[in-house]
Amino acid sequence: MDIVIIGSGNVASVLGRKFSAAGHKIVQVISRNAAAATELAYEWDTESSNYFSVINKNADVYIIAVSDNALKEIVHDLKLPGKVVAHTAGSVSKEVLRKVSDHYGVFYPLQSIRKDIKRLPDVPIFFEGNDDITNSALKKLAQSISVKQPVFAGSEDRMKLHIAAVIVGNFTNHLYSLAEQYCKKEGIDFHRLLPLIEETIERLKTNSPSDTLTGPAVRNDQQTIQNHLDLLKDHPHLQKVYQLLTESIQQTK
Amino acid sequence: MDIVIIGSGNVASVLGRKFSAAGHKIVQVISRNAAAATELAYEWDTESSNYFSVINKNADVYIIAVSDNALKEIVHDLKLPGKVVAHTAGSVSKEVLRKVSDHYGVFYPLQSIRKDIKRLPDVPIFFEGNDDITNSALKKLAQSISVKQPVFAGSEDRMKLHIAAVIVGNFTNHLYSLAEQYCKKEGIDFHRLLPLIEETIERLKTNSPSDTLTGPAVRNDQQTIQNHLDLLKDHPHLQKVYQLLTESIQQTK
Repeated sequence: MDIVIIGSGNVASVLGRKFSAAGHKIVQVISRNAAAATELAYEWDTESSNYFSVINKNADVYIIAVSDNALKEIVHDLKLPGKVVAHTAGSVSKEVLRKVSDHYGVFYPLQSIRKDIKRLPDVPIFFEGNDDITNSALKKLAQSISVKQPVFAGSEDRMKLHIAAVIVGNFTNHLYSLAEQYCKKEGIDFHRLLPLIEETIERLKTNSPSDTLTGPAVRNDQQTIQNHLDLLKDHPHLQKVYQLLTESIQQTK
Repeated sequence: MDIVIIGSGNVASVLGRKFSAAGHKIVQVISRNAAAATELAYEWDTESSNYFSVINKNADVYIIAVSDNALKEIVHDLKLPGKVVAHTAGSVSKEVLRKVSDHYGVFYPLQSIRKDIKRLPDVPIFFEGNDDITNSALKKLAQSISVKQPVFAGSEDRMKLHIAAVIVGNFTNHLYSLAEQYCKKEGIDFHRLLPLIEETIERLKTNSPSDTLTGPAVRNDQQTIQNHLDLLKDHPHLQKVYQLLTESIQQTK
């Protein structure tokens, strides 16, 4: 397909790379950040602009990957009659695009995406179109960039997916970050923990995490918990997080 | 090496399997749980007993993998003069074995270990012996079962490693468990989140987790945070955890 990418941030960059890698042609990059747009256009051997007025009207699909606030501003003046237009914002309704085209929808990538990491992860897509033409185009595009089958998901499901993603992505990464800072202060090599982290993930593929809980909290090993809290006295923030999550495990086990 | 395994729980089972796979000979399994000991002995084509009085005195190394409390009881009557004896309890001093042998120490596996999962993960070992003979034997044994170089670690370092392991292993697994329960109740397939989880881990190998935080908390996107908290009103426990970890991210970013 011929695709116009609107936006030049993390999602625009990584989706554009996935589209390119899948053999699609990015015919234009439009972004208010001219420098970032130029850089992406160079990467994909295409043209760029920071003026929406010069938008290429001959593409098959238009992907708008900008912040929620920018999205609301952009759609005011954007008219792409007859074209398939989708935004990538998980928590914004597809209806924000109602006046842009007759074929509009959402193309939501459920992945932690950063353009500075060149390795391309698999990006499962949840899509929602206002009609068959849009659904068919977005589904086909999604299938071309992910090994996972794309799934139709309305606003409410996307919000729930986002909540789950925050828990298993952002929150766990925060715990890794706290542990790394602790290790650094205590002179321990954080990378020694990688096999344990990998094993925890590996099990998710075959076992329910509820069935594989281990450690002092689920064993109710008060002596070890107290020893750990004592040892964390110079790390008050981590000590508090340790206590709260230990209580959470004990309340839900 | 010829090895006697004392214990028949998760650590005894998985270390025994790793020793077997590395070409060592398990010459005996001793455990108060006769049924579990018999099962392991059958698996390793060796003998078992629930009487410590019949312990084989001709092995090279004795690995005591029992609970902290059982360890304190067992060592009273155990005499293995001249033999290398080590326990696997991260939070117990090696000195608990002082009267068992002249060559004693700790062989601490930093891994989440469950015998019901047959796949054998890599098990990085932290060891500590009271003399060169013990250190050399434990180090050699550790090298034979892990691709990671074994590291010498005294009591205090082991305790710190355990704290870090609880954070990156038990606590993250708890979050996966909470997310899975949420998905189940909301009719979402938890496995859809696996690519995101895998990407979060993949980055740890090359980037500091502090540098790759994403999501509404670190962006201080109050609107999304409030939407999520509202949507979690029927999940009060998860709502509380969401709020606490969001605050934790904002306090430490």
